[in-house]
Order: sequence, then structure tokens, then C-alpha cells
Amino acid sequence: MNFPSKLIENAVTEISRLPGIGKKTALRLALHLLRQPEVFSEALSASILEMRQKTQYCRVCHNISDEEVCSICESHRRDRATVCVVEDIRDVLAIENTNQFQGVYHVLGGVISPIQGIGPDNLTIESLINRIGMGEIKEVILALSATMEGDTTSFYLGKRLKESGVKVSTIARGIPVGGELEFTDEVTLGRSILTRINYSQD
Amino acid sequence: MNFPSKLIENAVTEISRLPGIGKKTALRLALHLLRQPEVFSEALSASILEMRQKTQYCRVCHNISDEEVCSICESHRRDRATVCVVEDIRDVLAIENTNQFQGVYHVLGGVISPIQGIGPDNLTIESLINRIGMGEIKEVILALSATMEGDTTSFYLGKRLKESGVKVSTIARGIPVGGELEFTDEVTLGRSILTRINYSQD
Ligand SMILES: [Zn+2]
Ligand SMILES: [Zn+2]
Repeated sequence: MNFPSKLIENAVTEISRLPGIGKKTALRLALHLLRQPEVFSEALSASILEMRQKTQYCRVCHNISDEEVCSICESHRRDRATVCVVEDIRDVLAIENTNQFQGVYHVLGGVISPIQGIGPDNLTIESLINRIGMGEIKEVILALSATMEGDTTSFYLGKRLKESGVKVSTIARGIPVGGELEFTDEVTLGRSILTRINYSQD
Repeated sequence: MNFPSKLIENAVTEISRLPGIGKKTALRLALHLLRQPEVFSEALSASILEMRQKTQYCRVCHNISDEEVCSICESHRRDRATVCVVEDIRDVLAIENTNQFQGVYHVLGGVISPIQGIGPDNLTIESLINRIGMGEIKEVILALSATMEGDTTSFYLGKRLKESGVKVSTIARGIPVGGELEFTDEVTLGRSILTRINYSQD
């Protein structure tokens, strides 16, 4: 593509490095920015740079944070005895938005995947063991994806945490709320029968 | 949506102001930037700001430009006797990419649209009349979208340019009726320039 301006060409090149954004979309975005007041591009540009330069990983849970310790770990309204183990930051956001969890998190930074060369040492597992060693944690909830890698990681963590004496649970796998039973895939359905929950209160 | 970081929240807010990018996509892009080396966000941020602050409109043709006069108007390999009138910068890019046009451009900055309150005075029409008045231009090719507004603008320009004595043509209706020029494929667009129809016949 020919550009009448090196400056537009540069911006299009940089914008199209973003995932899911091709050259055509990048050009559309660049031209949009040119039509908007200058302050618009200034705010966009500054917010990206500031976010990248100033955010850090929480020293306790490895969640992304503006400070050395994240707002969730800092909060006195969170139950620090319950730790939810997730793959990455997006999972923290997803769970936070359910408003169903009042504990704290531990972000693994991925899942065990021999194919991608990710072993236990590439994840924040030692840090989790150390946190548990401090004695405050009573339950670890494994909230990993229902994929082979997620299951492998849950299995590995289950074994590693056994001797620590904390309760280890995993989030329920089953039919999505509102989902019709007949349209649920066989594996999910089979699993949801095997891991059925006692309904008669005891 | 709750964010663990004000900095991420700001970036997501700014990114989602872009057309076609919702909060979810903005978050995906923000998290991608966090996973990339810092230099990636620096380059993106700088290219956007530089483009917005340093580009200007060509004094001659109103195309976007890095200098006071754009590279097309500056070029000695372009035929300055033939001016292609387009709606905006995207159309210049679209026509340039056909490699079928060796003349120069005139960017109107829109089309006449009574509904949107855009009249002839809101466009660079006087500037075009002045350019023609300089005597170098022999032919004006109207390359506007095949929409009602585009046709209205072509009709208006045809009338205004009649007394100037230059040849006025319009690109062939290879463009699907109702289709926007920028979304027309290169072959159709190139062909429609080559088979342009003399517009000043009466
Ligand atoms: Zn934390
Ligand atoms: Zn120019």
C-alpha cells in the first residue's frame, strides 16, 4: 500500500501489529484519529505508554497492579484464607465480574503445556507453595480452563499441595447456566454426572 | 467491569473510544501490550502522537501530508494537467493503489449533504476553482461515491466548472450503485478511471 505520508505509514504499521487488526483496519483507525481533536490522540497515546511503563506484577499474587501489592491483596474486605488459582489476569477479571468470590487470587502465568515447552518451573507455583507455607491459607480453589493443559496443571497442583494440608477444590465443570441439557457436549455432560453435587442438604 | 489497575482501566477506556472497538476488545489489546516488550508500546504510542501532531493538509490539494505540499503535488512524474476530485484521503489511497492514475488530486473533504448540513461552502470547492484559474489544469475527473450525495456533488461541480472551459469527466460506473468508493476493489476502481466518461457534454 502506498501512503501519502510516512507518519501515517508508521502509525498504520504499529497499529497493525496488534492482534486481530489488519492493515485496512489500522488505516481506518489512523484516519479516524486524524479527524478527531489532537487531545484524543494525546490521551490514547499517553494511556498506553503509562499503562505499559507503570503497571507491575503484584508481589503476592502476580496479578497486574499499579502498586507493589495489588488492590485485591491489599483489601481488608477480602478473605485471605481462600486463594483462587487462575491462569492469567483475564481470569481474575472474569471472576471479579461475577461478584461471587470474596477471597484472593494466585495468577500462575499460564498452564503446564509440554508442547509449548511450559513446565511447572515457568509458572508461579513455588510462589504459591511459599504463600501456603505462611499458614494463613485454608483453601485453594483451582479455577483453570477445562482443557487438557488445564486439567494437567490441576492434577499437578493437587499432588503438590496434598502434603500442605490445605483444602484443595476445583470449580465445577458442567452445563452452563441457561444451557439446554440436550445441546451440551457428551464430555461435559458425562463429567457433570460423575461430579454431581449432593442436593439433599446434610 | 472492575479493573485491578487504574492504569489498565484508563488505557481500556481510551482504546475503546476507537470506532468498532468495544471494551472487551480494548481489554484484549491492553493485555497484549502488557505481555509484549515495553518498546512495542513505546513505538505504538509515539507513532500515533507523531502522526496526529505532525501531519498537515497539503496547501495545494488538501491531501494529508508530512510537508506543506504533499509528495504527489511535489512529484515531477505526475501529470499536473489532470486533477482527480475525491471526497477524502481514503479515496486518494484507494486510487493510488490501483497504479492507474498519474495525475494529481483535489480532496474535497466530504460531499454535499443537506441532511448532514454540508453545503458547497464546507468543501474545498473554491480552492479547486482557484487551482483551475491558474491555467495549468486541462481535465478534472470527478471520482465521487455512487451515492445520492456523491451524484449531487458531481452535478454541482459539473455546473460550476462548465464556464472554466476545462474538460470534466466522471469515473465510469464500474462502482456498484450505492457502493462506497473506498470499499471498491482495485481492479474495478482502476478500470473505472480508465473508462471515465466525459461529463461536460450537454
Ligand atoms: Zn495481589
Ligand atoms: Zn497535494
